[in-house]
Amino acid sequence: MPMNLIKSFMIVAATSAAFTALGSITDRETPIPTSATDIGTSVRAVIKAQEAAWNRGDIDSYMNAYAHSGKTVFVSSDNVTRGWQTVRDRYKKKYDTREKMGLLTLSELEVTSLSGEAALVLGRWSLKRKADNPHGRFTLLFRRTPEGWRIVLDHTSTAEK
Amino acid sequence: MPMNLIKSFMIVAATSAAFTALGSITDRETPIPTSATDIGTSVRAVIKAQEAAWNRGDIDSYMNAYAHSGKTVFVSSDNVTRGWQTVRDRYKKKYDTREKMGLLTLSELEVTSLSGEAALVLGRWSLKRKADNPHGRFTLLFRRTPEGWRIVLDHTSTAEK
Repeated sequence: MPMNLIKSFMIVAATSAAFTALGSITDRETPIPTSATDIGTSVRAVIKAQEAAWNRGDIDSYMNAYAHSGKTVFVSSDNVTRGWQTVRDRYKKKYDTREKMGLLTLSELEVTSLSGEAALVLGRWSLKRKADNPHGRFTLLFRRTPEGWRIVLDHTSTAEK
Repeated sequence: MPMNLIKSFMIVAATSAAFTALGSITDRETPIPTSATDIGTSVRAVIKAQEAAWNRGDIDSYMNAYAHSGKTVFVSSDNVTRGWQTVRDRYKKKYDTREKMGLLTLSELEVTSLSGEAALVLGRWSLKRKADNPHGRFTLLFRRTPEGWRIVLDHTSTAEK
């Protein structure tokens, strides 16, 4: 796409976002940001809320970060878990005690805005537990949904023991 | 962004792609597609070329799939390798014989177009070797570059032995 077309589109998108924000105040809805800076802030807030939910043992609130869709995907090792409900069930089964959940830290977040509708996050995860300290990396694809920015794909890898 | 704005943008983008294609014939350059279908075709072609290069022991051609940039990232277990050259050096060191390279199969490709400029690919990898058969999943972020569609982030995970 020529650069001037991209610029025109960005201006139109920015103007549209401003109108959406104004509209939202009237409608008493929370505006969902579309600028790169605001996307970064929103996405980081979702991840921080997710970390806090985990650390109070609340997997259901943790799962709020994922899009409530049959297309949501969780990838690890050679496994693909498909659908929000199935991803939730996997977490509930794998982490069925507070000891197994441990203390989660999500850090080194790098957010890349891909459009007004999608963003990619690379980050590090670490679980502090009595028995061990598993850790690794994750790549998250976020999409703008009517509920806010939500994870539609999570690829998580773990350091070898 | 309102739906009618997205539609308008898609029409403008499609028109622009058509002009680009016409321009490219004159310029004798290969047009770089921006429609969702064409992005899928292009991205799959890059991955198939990558697989073929690997299977003739040609890591340098394999590396053509990655954006030749200091920002290109390869993620596995708890490791992040940054920069095209460093990613290449990692492959060259880890797979320094044809026996270690084995026979690569990249399959179950799912391409999601995120904009005219970015696409995400989920897929499965498998190495057939005399000694073992490592396998797992990968998530690739592709970006449209002047050279064509190229990988800017590769997150690869491996099944536990």
